[in-house]
Amino acid sequence: MAGSSFGEAFKITTFGESHGEAVGVIVDGVTPGLEIDERYIQVQMDRRKPGQSSVTTPRKEYDLVRILSGMFEGRTTGTPLCLMLQNTDMRPSAYDGMDQTFRPGHADYAYLKKYGLRDHRGSGRASGRETAARVAAGAVACKLLEARGVGIVAYTREIGGIACRTYQPDEIEKNNVRACDPEAAVRMEARITELAARGDSVGGIVECRISGAMAGLGEPVFDKLDADLAKAMLSIGAVKGIEFGTGFSAAGMLGSEHNDGMDADGFLSNHAGGILGGISTGADIVFRVVVKPTSSISVPQRTVNVEGEERTIGTEGRHDPCICPRIVPVIEAMACLVLEDHYKRQAALRD
Amino acid sequence: MAGSSFGEAFKITTFGESHGEAVGVIVDGVTPGLEIDERYIQVQMDRRKPGQSSVTTPRKEYDLVRILSGMFEGRTTGTPLCLMLQNTDMRPSAYDGMDQTFRPGHADYAYLKKYGLRDHRGSGRASGRETAARVAAGAVACKLLEARGVGIVAYTREIGGIACRTYQPDEIEKNNVRACDPEAAVRMEARITELAARGDSVGGIVECRISGAMAGLGEPVFDKLDADLAKAMLSIGAVKGIEFGTGFSAAGMLGSEHNDGMDADGFLSNHAGGILGGISTGADIVFRVVVKPTSSISVPQRTVNVEGEERTIGTEGRHDPCICPRIVPVIEAMACLVLEDHYKRQAALRD
Amino acid sequence: MAGSSFGEAFKITTFGESHGEAVGVIVDGVTPGLEIDERYIQVQMDRRKPGQSSVTTPRKEYDLVRILSGMFEGRTTGTPLCLMLQNTDMRPSAYDGMDQTFRPGHADYAYLKKYGLRDHRGSGRASGRETAARVAAGAVACKLLEARGVGIVAYTREIGGIACRTYQPDEIEKNNVRACDPEAAVRMEARITELAARGDSVGGIVECRISGAMAGLGEPVFDKLDADLAKAMLSIGAVKGIEFGTGFSAAGMLGSEHNDGMDADGFLSNHAGGILGGISTGADIVFRVVVKPTSSISVPQRTVNVEGEERTIGTEGRHDPCICPRIVPVIEAMACLVLEDHYKRQAALRD
Amino acid sequence: MAGSSFGEAFKITTFGESHGEAVGVIVDGVTPGLEIDERYIQVQMDRRKPGQSSVTTPRKEYDLVRILSGMFEGRTTGTPLCLMLQNTDMRPSAYDGMDQTFRPGHADYAYLKKYGLRDHRGSGRASGRETAARVAAGAVACKLLEARGVGIVAYTREIGGIACRTYQPDEIEKNNVRACDPEAAVRMEARITELAARGDSVGGIVECRISGAMAGLGEPVFDKLDADLAKAMLSIGAVKGIEFGTGFSAAGMLGSEHNDGMDADGFLSNHAGGILGGISTGADIVFRVVVKPTSSISVPQRTVNVEGEERTIGTEGRHDPCICPRIVPVIEAMACLVLEDHYKRQAALRD
Repeated sequence: MAGSSFGEAFKITTFGESHGEAVGVIVDGVTPGLEIDERYIQVQMDRRKPGQSSVTTPRKEYDLVRILSGMFEGRTTGTPLCLMLQNTDMRPSAYDGMDQTFRPGHADYAYLKKYGLRDHRGSGRASGRETAARVAAGAVACKLLEARGVGIVAYTREIGGIACRTYQPDEIEKNNVRACDPEAAVRMEARITELAARGDSVGGIVECRISGAMAGLGEPVFDKLDADLAKAMLSIGAVKGIEFGTGFSAAGMLGSEHNDGMDADGFLSNHAGGILGGISTGADIVFRVVVKPTSSISVPQRTVNVEGEERTIGTEGRHDPCICPRIVPVIEAMACLVLEDHYKRQAALRD
Repeated sequence: MAGSSFGEAFKITTFGESHGEAVGVIVDGVTPGLEIDERYIQVQMDRRKPGQSSVTTPRKEYDLVRILSGMFEGRTTGTPLCLMLQNTDMRPSAYDGMDQTFRPGHADYAYLKKYGLRDHRGSGRASGRETAARVAAGAVACKLLEARGVGIVAYTREIGGIACRTYQPDEIEKNNVRACDPEAAVRMEARITELAARGDSVGGIVECRISGAMAGLGEPVFDKLDADLAKAMLSIGAVKGIEFGTGFSAAGMLGSEHNDGMDADGFLSNHAGGILGGISTGADIVFRVVVKPTSSISVPQRTVNVEGEERTIGTEGRHDPCICPRIVPVIEAMACLVLEDHYKRQAALRD
Repeated sequence: MAGSSFGEAFKITTFGESHGEAVGVIVDGVTPGLEIDERYIQVQMDRRKPGQSSVTTPRKEYDLVRILSGMFEGRTTGTPLCLMLQNTDMRPSAYDGMDQTFRPGHADYAYLKKYGLRDHRGSGRASGRETAARVAAGAVACKLLEARGVGIVAYTREIGGIACRTYQPDEIEKNNVRACDPEAAVRMEARITELAARGDSVGGIVECRISGAMAGLGEPVFDKLDADLAKAMLSIGAVKGIEFGTGFSAAGMLGSEHNDGMDADGFLSNHAGGILGGISTGADIVFRVVVKPTSSISVPQRTVNVEGEERTIGTEGRHDPCICPRIVPVIEAMACLVLEDHYKRQAALRD
Repeated sequence: MAGSSFGEAFKITTFGESHGEAVGVIVDGVTPGLEIDERYIQVQMDRRKPGQSSVTTPRKEYDLVRILSGMFEGRTTGTPLCLMLQNTDMRPSAYDGMDQTFRPGHADYAYLKKYGLRDHRGSGRASGRETAARVAAGAVACKLLEARGVGIVAYTREIGGIACRTYQPDEIEKNNVRACDPEAAVRMEARITELAARGDSVGGIVECRISGAMAGLGEPVFDKLDADLAKAMLSIGAVKGIEFGTGFSAAGMLGSEHNDGMDADGFLSNHAGGILGGISTGADIVFRVVVKPTSSISVPQRTVNVEGEERTIGTEGRHDPCICPRIVPVIEAMACLVLEDHYKRQAALRD
């Protein structure tokens, strides 16, 4: 009910605030016998952690993951893993005064209305820091999916109107914005740097491709594979929309254009994005999400305080001028969690 | 696990196939003492039912809803409602031969891979007919939300490249395509009629606005209000994407543009679509979904049969050339279910 | 939340009141391809239905089960089965006047406090009639378990102080009380008949044995196999307790007596009742439940009405003087549902 | 599915093994604004911790609880609490050699069958140490229930055939066995001491009374209040049975004896144990559980090793000769979790 769990057969439950003691996750339903260790998970943590480059927040968190349970002699036992990350670079004092004034674009006002009180230090539970726990859990799912032959890769497709024109997967991890087109990446980075200097931020689009997933994943009515992926993606703070395959372009297409024909070798196109009737077809699963510009900016903005008095605010603190580069591993993690969950659900159904 | 249930505190479970005996739904968690009857629900059923106008399928289903349980002397008792609709105009013979050949754009192939067998009559469980049960359940949620002062309205925004230019809510139910702009509606209907004559179909965009919802609905991490709405909408067969507020346009916006400022009267804009950090702010909740062109068309298409042999197919049967007009009440129903569920969850949290 | 669903991977959701239009159940997660039909299910319905013998209520319900969905050409499709039973012999007028007075031993008072109103006709949802839906769903699980080599049998062990001294499984269905000892059965039936004549009722103990279940079923912490069986059994209206293996006798035993040793052929005893640490060991699973005397009796009893005024009441209507014979198939059904669910969960874990 | 979560509106998820790094729990759905701190929780931890007296295991764990999240300025924020206990006195070497031989009465064999591998150090997840996390979470629920006027108390009723003859609630915490009769307590302690000296163990019965709970808690079909309490109690490792009110004695009672009459002041008796039709009546909720003798004894017993070869084993390590005194706070904790969950569910239903 309170919504800190995700998944059914492969299920995670997270805890922790941005400037509290720790963030972490319990992963329940992990296949026993999986060989995994903290180093494997750490690789993903390092892709998400702050302070990676000139276009990410300078907050220094090493995001060192510790496995507290569920392992024995280097293998999972089938009982819950608890993965924990101690917070180290908390500066709650940077948020002094913010308990009285609502930051535009943040959840401050909504949280106060929901709970009747709120932890204003660095957005508390609404902080992007919460996603560190998801990335840790996603790494476990990813390891299981590797053995199933499933590959999941996300990348920046567009930032502030600058779009990738080519798809070069090998380039993604080589540039600071995780774009799939190195030439666009240069311009994106320049744009972010320029906006950061002005105290502003910018949005973008991230695309995700899943290859090698078996046909038949997803449940036919409410737990459609695309429905569960949509929920997973929209559960990431900055994401404001998702589209599969041709997505919103389908609004202007004819059935005779959009339907993917088949021949003896398989599908002739992939307008559906690899999912039909909510169930994977075996074609690549392709979706895009829109990432809003980071809410925390130092440009002065109109707002009110808790007494309803009008104020002007510019958010201090250390923030990402564009969240796309760091959201990429979060999107991959959530996609891994959904896929692994549905593999296990399919096994239960057919047993 | 098998995915035929939706919601937690206000929970529905559906059953039934397109050409089986009946479709229906169990609604569990209904507030006791609600005055409701079959006539109230029927109004919504009639908005979704086939054969309403020249632009919908001629299949004749009266979609008469029956309440089998959970009522006593005109009021809900708090125990589960079972709402059932008998199928009457089944023509399974129209699907003869289709058990061997996969229809492009349909779930045929995916279902066969998932289950190892499939009910090919009118798409079985993958049929849009399944949504009749959702509309019935949504009507119950809608009645509860009315008492809370919440209004939910959906309408066609765009079909086949023809977009509404005005928002006139009073016009929506007066035209056959449920568009919010009567002038655009005329052109949309003409476009659909022309394509239907050619045996083709077309996609569109439907928008939904929710007014009067309290601030504080939605859970902060996975069960964000927008995440649950996204899942609800993507669980509708023809929907391929969703966006909140400014949606995909946010990719090109700056933080200083996208953040909604506040003054003493409330929010100065609504780029967020009424949800921040996954929690309602009290502003109108606004989202759009893209509806793909109906897969069932009579234009010949390339496909294969179950033996992998190449075939050409044109779907017979009775289908909607554009599903937007009939999907509008389904979107409203799903939005009602999500909202009512979160109202109840908020009550539990604060109790 | 509202509690009309049970199970996770094999999940049922029930609806219906004693004197409403119908009772029924949606079964979600059924393995596709299972050959089953209404006749197979009807056999179990007939074991539970009223009017079977001189020791059961004379209410005449044929309890004819109809499968409304989820089947195609004699096999399950993997989509939800809806199983429905029309009520036929409703006599709500028999309950006239009972809306004002609380019947001792019934849920009347508790329901009124819970819901603020109640359906007083034959106990509504609290009636034993609700279990008809469980038996129908249980038959589906039973068919799946048969193929797994699992056998589940329940029987009356004791009624009103008269206990079975022998265990003769072939005799169970041959006597009216479903006792495992034909000699005791004769005395039990005489005792019930005598009490029924006086307008009174009597309690008993039912035992259940599950053979052939694989070792490894059940989850280690909260969803232990015995915990889920306990919940399943206590969810049956008249059941007031459960014990596994030696049960309450273990309070007086030493560890050296209670521990089941092993040799090369397996366990040397079965004090644990086939479950250790919440997980099946492969030994027979054995448990007993206590069934309270039927609350509906015509012996006058002290009570109050809704105004709190003192009244004397003797319940009219048609009731079982001892519910043991008819609860036996309900207990088997619930045990089948738990076992099948855990088989599927184990498949998901190990996938 | 993997069963490490319990509850719906007030939900806990636990992790951790006996000889791993830590045990802990995430508590989701906590009412915001609750004043609570580690000292309040520690009081309950100290009642469960090992090494309290001569009749408990000498293992030395301080069981110091730390709150890692969900708190701000001394009050809960409504987001998940993570409560963690570091393990300190691990002696995995005490279990050397036990990876090859199944200990009678333990879950060793069942775990190996379930997972294909197992953590043999101190029973891993099957250890009673897992219940420390439950007690921590239960303390939070207890604090919420205090404000509702609900009191929950458990106590030893019987050990090894020695039964309490009086109910003196003030005496419970004054004797080492937590019995409600100080005279019986003396004899129980002597009996345990004698058996411990022989390397044996003994079982018992624990009773729980809940006063002040509102009428109307519990859901009518599967999530009956007694069904959920039964699941909660049977989910505790050593518990092998439960009975409500008169319990198994009801098997020999008549309806005219068992039904609780009412007069203007309320119920005239409490044979039902405070629950009718699965819903609380406002009378005291009373149940008893049977606790099996501790499996870990040093008396030699017959068993087999993983190769199926016959062996004799006497368990070393540090164990409780009777688990009743330390299970009392676990039973109270689980009862608190069930009650608080149902209070919140009732709030959702009636909202």
